[in-house]
Amino acid sequence: MPRNAIISGAMKKVRIALLGCGTVGGGVLRLLSDNRQHLAARVGAEIEVAHVLVRDASRVRVSECRAEWLTTDPERVLGDKSVDLVVEVMGGQEPAKGYIERAIAQGMSVVSANKALLAAHGPALLASAAEAGVDLAFEASVAGGVPVIRTLRDSLTSDWVSNLCGLLNGTCNYILSRMRDEGASFEAVLKDAQALGYAEADPSLDVDGHDAAQKLTVLSMLAFGAVAQTAYVEGIREIDELDFKFAERFGFVIKHVAIGHERGERLELRAHPTLLPASNPLSGVHGVLNGVFIQGRALGPCLLVGRGAGEMPTAVSVVADIVDVARARVEGASGLATRAIKPVARPLVPMSEIETRYYLRFEVNDEPGVLAAIAGALGEQLISVEHMVQESRWRKAGEVDPNWVPILMITHRSQEGRITAALDKINGFSFMRSKARLIRIEDDV
Amino acid sequence: MPRNAIISGAMKKVRIALLGCGTVGGGVLRLLSDNRQHLAARVGAEIEVAHVLVRDASRVRVSECRAEWLTTDPERVLGDKSVDLVVEVMGGQEPAKGYIERAIAQGMSVVSANKALLAAHGPALLASAAEAGVDLAFEASVAGGVPVIRTLRDSLTSDWVSNLCGLLNGTCNYILSRMRDEGASFEAVLKDAQALGYAEADPSLDVDGHDAAQKLTVLSMLAFGAVAQTAYVEGIREIDELDFKFAERFGFVIKHVAIGHERGERLELRAHPTLLPASNPLSGVHGVLNGVFIQGRALGPCLLVGRGAGEMPTAVSVVADIVDVARARVEGASGLATRAIKPVARPLVPMSEIETRYYLRFEVNDEPGVLAAIAGALGEQLISVEHMVQESRWRKAGEVDPNWVPILMITHRSQEGRITAALDKINGFSFMRSKARLIRIEDDV
Repeated sequence: MPRNAIISGAMKKVRIALLGCGTVGGGVLRLLSDNRQHLAARVGAEIEVAHVLVRDASRVRVSECRAEWLTTDPERVLGDKSVDLVVEVMGGQEPAKGYIERAIAQGMSVVSANKALLAAHGPALLASAAEAGVDLAFEASVAGGVPVIRTLRDSLTSDWVSNLCGLLNGTCNYILSRMRDEGASFEAVLKDAQALGYAEADPSLDVDGHDAAQKLTVLSMLAFGAVAQTAYVEGIREIDELDFKFAERFGFVIKHVAIGHERGERLELRAHPTLLPASNPLSGVHGVLNGVFIQGRALGPCLLVGRGAGEMPTAVSVVADIVDVARARVEGASGLATRAIKPVARPLVPMSEIETRYYLRFEVNDEPGVLAAIAGALGEQLISVEHMVQESRWRKAGEVDPNWVPILMITHRSQEGRITAALDKINGFSFMRSKARLIRIEDDV
Repeated sequence: MPRNAIISGAMKKVRIALLGCGTVGGGVLRLLSDNRQHLAARVGAEIEVAHVLVRDASRVRVSECRAEWLTTDPERVLGDKSVDLVVEVMGGQEPAKGYIERAIAQGMSVVSANKALLAAHGPALLASAAEAGVDLAFEASVAGGVPVIRTLRDSLTSDWVSNLCGLLNGTCNYILSRMRDEGASFEAVLKDAQALGYAEADPSLDVDGHDAAQKLTVLSMLAFGAVAQTAYVEGIREIDELDFKFAERFGFVIKHVAIGHERGERLELRAHPTLLPASNPLSGVHGVLNGVFIQGRALGPCLLVGRGAGEMPTAVSVVADIVDVARARVEGASGLATRAIKPVARPLVPMSEIETRYYLRFEVNDEPGVLAAIAGALGEQLISVEHMVQESRWRKAGEVDPNWVPILMITHRSQEGRITAALDKINGFSFMRSKARLIRIEDDV
């Protein structure tokens, strides 16, 4: 390992290169500059910026970013053997993946904030890093300002996680919080969130649940030691005002939740809209905040809440990783923390086999025999109903047909395969005005 | 530093000694045994128990505690130059302090779960450890299963904490949660908590606030880099059912909160019953759970919640520290993390100078002129009132006098010195049936 580079001069130095310098990268440079002396004491060496790789060297950046650092040439960065550690804050798959692989191969340690890359290639990159004797740290890849990776890796080092539930997407949480508070529609709140910068012009990565699912995959590497698996995903576009009304009536809050449960050798990994009991610790986490609830076998319950995104919260997490990795470098102990993460393949529980309670919503013609038909189809699948409400005074926004009636049911714990079979049958009935709706209920926390 | 002991044999070893083996010590031995291989991989060396110092070697212990480890002779432990690290889980001031000082002087690193000792002597012990080039880690000393020390030390390494609020005493939180839920009195719930093992036979350390204040002092070393200062303390014995009713009416929850605010160079450090707005993230943390809310300048808000006590949660935190400290030992980097904590003396803001909103409760004779007299005394001190309620139908338990009336006021932000002066005057009025009551309101979070 080419560590000699740092053991020269009076004060040791750790030379870092930033790949990318957007908002998070700018925040990192600012924190490194503002906390220079304190960080040097923590690391046992001065952190020196060597290069900042960007696409456009002429763009205006934070004042802490010196012009001589900037380069658009990856060769200048990755070909520089004096670089100890690269900080990847560019995002996306390529060229980030190729850059990181090359850095690792050359004995550089890596700090990455790239959840999409880690979800897709985390285990392979960790294995490469372990083999090369370097570190790969990624606190900022999940829930920006929430120290969840560090907690799973360090605090829980002698424990096993049995359950993990997270509000991992700030955009979903913001939209659902406002829909609940204001009784507004998904479309209206999304439009406003876009105007305010809380949602992207193309919001699908967030509101369709993929961002949360990727983060769940990253967390499951640490929480369950599981090789990246594609979690089951559903987004929040279908949730409407009526769902909030019904949920509230039964003491639930609707959140987009990423869920990981250990089921013997197998895992449940799923990210979807979820009814949480109001008493659930995540039910009070609103707005753009992220939250992760961890149930450790020995530790018991642990809840972490903070800002999931944003320049400075994410930058604070990146710098915490830089300090860890740089310190290991100075001590000649690179790779030790990374080698301890050895995810193995664990099968997922198919969605048809999961068991939970379900919120079911049927929109029907108000005619005789409807309830009997629905109840009959559920009964055939041995699904028993805990609550049922049919209230004609509750109307969907814009619905004027007096013959239109919503029926709401909360089931006891059932297997999802049975629920699906029953809904298939019910959806075939002529009185159904639209497809039956299902939202899973999370009681396990 | 005598580190050679660990660099012998095929697999490196780190030899540890436990000082004390009560419930937490037993949990530590269990976790070390259950996770032996995983921990060896994390540390880069096997963790080997050398000694367990106890007062009574004949007492029955967890099955993981081998008879040959047990000794009642501190000489056998502290005189053993092959011990790399001592784990102090005995509690109290002496002999724990003397043992730790001797271990540090001999080049052993120390993991301690002893909040009382750290609150009283933390800066001196940290300085000794830094000088000796060893580590002193103490995650388990505050809020057992909540990774707050690690978060302040590692995750926030490039940030500054501006505010910190914690529910740091599980007994207080349990009692106040049940008083609120059941409308029960302090005495009744305390008795029950004692029967259930949630409160000590002598509950004063907990319910009078001293435990929370000690933990606040420990946290302030890390959050504010402040040398241990005695925080202002009030306990919860005076809170009664009526306070909960009034608090709820105005959208507040009553908690025992440890508060640290940065005010320029000075600090506010105080632990007392507090009215938290229901929207405060700590307001939903009930029962024996602990919670800490941290406001970082760059990170923004961060909430950590978990079990504050109990064998296994605390043991998980102790083992996380053992892994950190042992790893530093193996890497020859002992003392680096500890040296970075350099608390300095920071003056406290006197209580008379703090500014907040206040909940004031007066119990008066129902007679003309009462309100005018109270309002006048407040007005003289330029204290303005935000809400006022006088409801004769609200009665204290056991109060039968129809002439007894409670008056409740919520003030705007005022200086505590002015409030105290006003209450002194009001307490002298003949219509006052008992001393005026004051509970501070915390809005800063």
